[in-house]
Amino acid sequence: MLGDSPEFRSDISWSTSKSITVFGHDLVDDLVGKVNLGDMGFLELTGRLPTPGESGVFNALTVSLVEHGMTPSAIAARLTHYGAPDSLQSAVAAGLLGLGTTFVGSIEGAARYVQEANLEGDLAAEAGAIVDRFVAAKTLIPGIGHPIHKPLDPRAERLFTLLDEAGLTGPEVALIREVARQAGIALGKVLPVNVTGAIGAIASGLGIDWRAARGIGVMARAVGLVGHVLEEIRRPTAPAIWREVDEAASRHHQ
Amino acid sequence: MLGDSPEFRSDISWSTSKSITVFGHDLVDDLVGKVNLGDMGFLELTGRLPTPGESGVFNALTVSLVEHGMTPSAIAARLTHYGAPDSLQSAVAAGLLGLGTTFVGSIEGAARYVQEANLEGDLAAEAGAIVDRFVAAKTLIPGIGHPIHKPLDPRAERLFTLLDEAGLTGPEVALIREVARQAGIALGKVLPVNVTGAIGAIASGLGIDWRAARGIGVMARAVGLVGHVLEEIRRPTAPAIWREVDEAASRHHQ
Amino acid sequence: MLGDSPEFRSDISWSTSKSITVFGHDLVDDLVGKVNLGDMGFLELTGRLPTPGESGVFNALTVSLVEHGMTPSAIAARLTHYGAPDSLQSAVAAGLLGLGTTFVGSIEGAARYVQEANLEGDLAAEAGAIVDRFVAAKTLIPGIGHPIHKPLDPRAERLFTLLDEAGLTGPEVALIREVARQAGIALGKVLPVNVTGAIGAIASGLGIDWRAARGIGVMARAVGLVGHVLEEIRRPTAPAIWREVDEAASRHHQ
Amino acid sequence: MLGDSPEFRSDISWSTSKSITVFGHDLVDDLVGKVNLGDMGFLELTGRLPTPGESGVFNALTVSLVEHGMTPSAIAARLTHYGAPDSLQSAVAAGLLGLGTTFVGSIEGAARYVQEANLEGDLAAEAGAIVDRFVAAKTLIPGIGHPIHKPLDPRAERLFTLLDEAGLTGPEVALIREVARQAGIALGKVLPVNVTGAIGAIASGLGIDWRAARGIGVMARAVGLVGHVLEEIRRPTAPAIWREVDEAASRHHQ
Repeated sequence: MLGDSPEFRSDISWSTSKSITVFGHDLVDDLVGKVNLGDMGFLELTGRLPTPGESGVFNALTVSLVEHGMTPSAIAARLTHYGAPDSLQSAVAAGLLGLGTTFVGSIEGAARYVQEANLEGDLAAEAGAIVDRFVAAKTLIPGIGHPIHKPLDPRAERLFTLLDEAGLTGPEVALIREVARQAGIALGKVLPVNVTGAIGAIASGLGIDWRAARGIGVMARAVGLVGHVLEEIRRPTAPAIWREVDEAASRHHQ
Repeated sequence: MLGDSPEFRSDISWSTSKSITVFGHDLVDDLVGKVNLGDMGFLELTGRLPTPGESGVFNALTVSLVEHGMTPSAIAARLTHYGAPDSLQSAVAAGLLGLGTTFVGSIEGAARYVQEANLEGDLAAEAGAIVDRFVAAKTLIPGIGHPIHKPLDPRAERLFTLLDEAGLTGPEVALIREVARQAGIALGKVLPVNVTGAIGAIASGLGIDWRAARGIGVMARAVGLVGHVLEEIRRPTAPAIWREVDEAASRHHQ
Repeated sequence: MLGDSPEFRSDISWSTSKSITVFGHDLVDDLVGKVNLGDMGFLELTGRLPTPGESGVFNALTVSLVEHGMTPSAIAARLTHYGAPDSLQSAVAAGLLGLGTTFVGSIEGAARYVQEANLEGDLAAEAGAIVDRFVAAKTLIPGIGHPIHKPLDPRAERLFTLLDEAGLTGPEVALIREVARQAGIALGKVLPVNVTGAIGAIASGLGIDWRAARGIGVMARAVGLVGHVLEEIRRPTAPAIWREVDEAASRHHQ
Repeated sequence: MLGDSPEFRSDISWSTSKSITVFGHDLVDDLVGKVNLGDMGFLELTGRLPTPGESGVFNALTVSLVEHGMTPSAIAARLTHYGAPDSLQSAVAAGLLGLGTTFVGSIEGAARYVQEANLEGDLAAEAGAIVDRFVAAKTLIPGIGHPIHKPLDPRAERLFTLLDEAGLTGPEVALIREVARQAGIALGKVLPVNVTGAIGAIASGLGIDWRAARGIGVMARAVGLVGHVLEEIRRPTAPAIWREVDEAASRHHQ
């Protein structure tokens, strides 16, 4: 029997024969039928239930990430379903594995510099330090810039508006807007705060640890990937994708 | 360039430089800030947005599945994070891979026999045929029975009550209750409809294809697994679990 | 501390500060530099090292499965790498997830009916019972038939020849050849033993449990998928595959 | 139809109705029965077949990594099998997902600094620059140091001996030994080249790109994980691990 060492402790959920407790709430009495799935995500990420305003904003963050059509992640899920049709969970998992630095990493990156800044200090100076650091490292500034949506990214602006309407706008938004403004000057380009930057900043204001900010995208895409697998069950695309890619790859060798 | 053959078609989402459309809805204008994450799950599974009553019920189904503490799936996610700490998505994916026949398969199994039954026919006869089939095959009847919760499973009853309050109770519930009743007689035991049976029956009434019913659990657990990875980041359990299991496994060889 | 209950026992490998033991062999002294990777696969699957003849045959089985070009599994691995370029292991894992019933399941299926047959009995009668069972269920007979390679599949024949040269041909080969012959008569087609059937039968003769026979393919493809990820690192295909599939999927909605 | 753009090109394998070609070799005639599984790994990683000496060394690298008992990766695979017993490939994939920076990342790290060094230059100066860089960054030097095995790691020494016996020792070995020596002086400790350092250096000498060096571990562990799943099928450990961990985690809340 494992001892009662704190190294095995989990404070998320525990159950007895009579009840299941989740972060201190009774699952059946206090959560089921009373909160929505996004609220559970907020609870998992912050340890507390959201206020109504926070609930609306957090759900909006996730909703904006659920679906973006035939992404590499969705295609990988569909190809996996083709090979393992009795394991829906494997297809979804394969799709989630592509949610790394390329696609959702910028949420994490933006949340990180927002959370590491001194938000009670001079935001212009804080933003300047952030821009200088990324420019010196010659890397992209996470959450800033978009090939099409400029000077503003409509999804980011929509999220900022929702935050404002909920009365929740904090210094995180001002900071990331200032990062975008100064980056634009430093690099001589029009650089909007993009949707991942908005999510990173807003999540920071909601108290979500940047180390788990990528998880907002993971939760959301898991929802979307189930839909892709269902469509694939009903009307497969994987056989045709395989055939076309294999033929194109082989053409060089004939 | 791939042709416009229907074999590549997806009707889930498409985008232009100006908008992203998801199942016919404009993502920014009609979904973000207007629906919650569970509603997006409903949209992915049925192709349409839920009514308010359906939204409450479907969110309740997912909420009931988000979290159950230190499950095999959560432990696998934590162990994976230990080895790949920079890939939160890998830890969540590893956890989802365990959502197969043992844990969420009974949702699928229950949804299947409900959807394959003639719900406009004689439900007692339909239930009898289902029970006979499983009893003859000497396999458990999915969604029926519980080692502790009997004569009723409180989570199942809570979901049925919510469905009723939303005015959405249909013949699916009557059928699965009859399956439980007849199974109890056939097997000489007290057999409640359990929570996975309730979810399978209710999902069927909501129009969710049994072939994707497992996806309700996959969506929900993805949310919960993110919370487990975050707790693991802050207070690791994996090193201790590894140490204890390795020592116990090795003890036989010393 | 976990007790010394047999329920935690593993007999695969254990280590002290001085040595690592694998299935009773000293890793450094007896395995590294003395056996090859395929031999380790044989050891994992049977608990003992192969004889030289078995080593050649088992390695041949795996070699035949390592690589088949731009399969759905390889494409999924490449798309995953695109999203998570710092996690080679995630790309390989995504590729492996597609090795389910569609592609490697027939190895398992063939190994199963071979192992469940009475190989000391009348093989013609045993084969007849197998064919009858699948024909009655209206399902394909695993390991039998090929759209192109008939009357013989050259890969299967090559493996049977190697087995013969090693002096290891047993009743498993005769049985599956008889299954193919009788199936051909029953279905009025020319049906060869295909490469997955040959692998299933040969693996059975080598003492490999059918419940892990799929693992021969998993081991082999893991090797091949690493090569695909490396080529993808050097010359990406995923961005073009994404672009083409997304455009083809969206074309219906413009 | 996808065009013949080089962006879809793969040079790994292609097939016609008559043959399968792998890196220019006919699969059936030239590979099956003639090379072993480790040789296929070498072929995937370098594009060419190994010489006999290279074959022995490369197989030894992989053999040294196949198995290390009840690792976090093996436990995750076993827990996944418990939830999805019909998907052996999912259990193996879950196990591979833990092969990130913590366990196999140091192979990659060591291979990287070896390959980025000027091996035709002054190796002492090159080693000094490497040590200085890691010491300045206050991070561990990949491939150097071991809590137990010092002054020498027997597995590393075994691999170096095999390399020597094959006449393949190059400047990579001298470099990493010098890195260990200078790191020991700089940090005031006895620091051996450990087994991952040896593998990283030897792989570099064999021409394996550091960006795929982690793949040596992935190939090897896939082989080992199949064995763990098989043992789990026959004698489950996952239920007991779950029970113990769940009880220990819950004890704080009772």
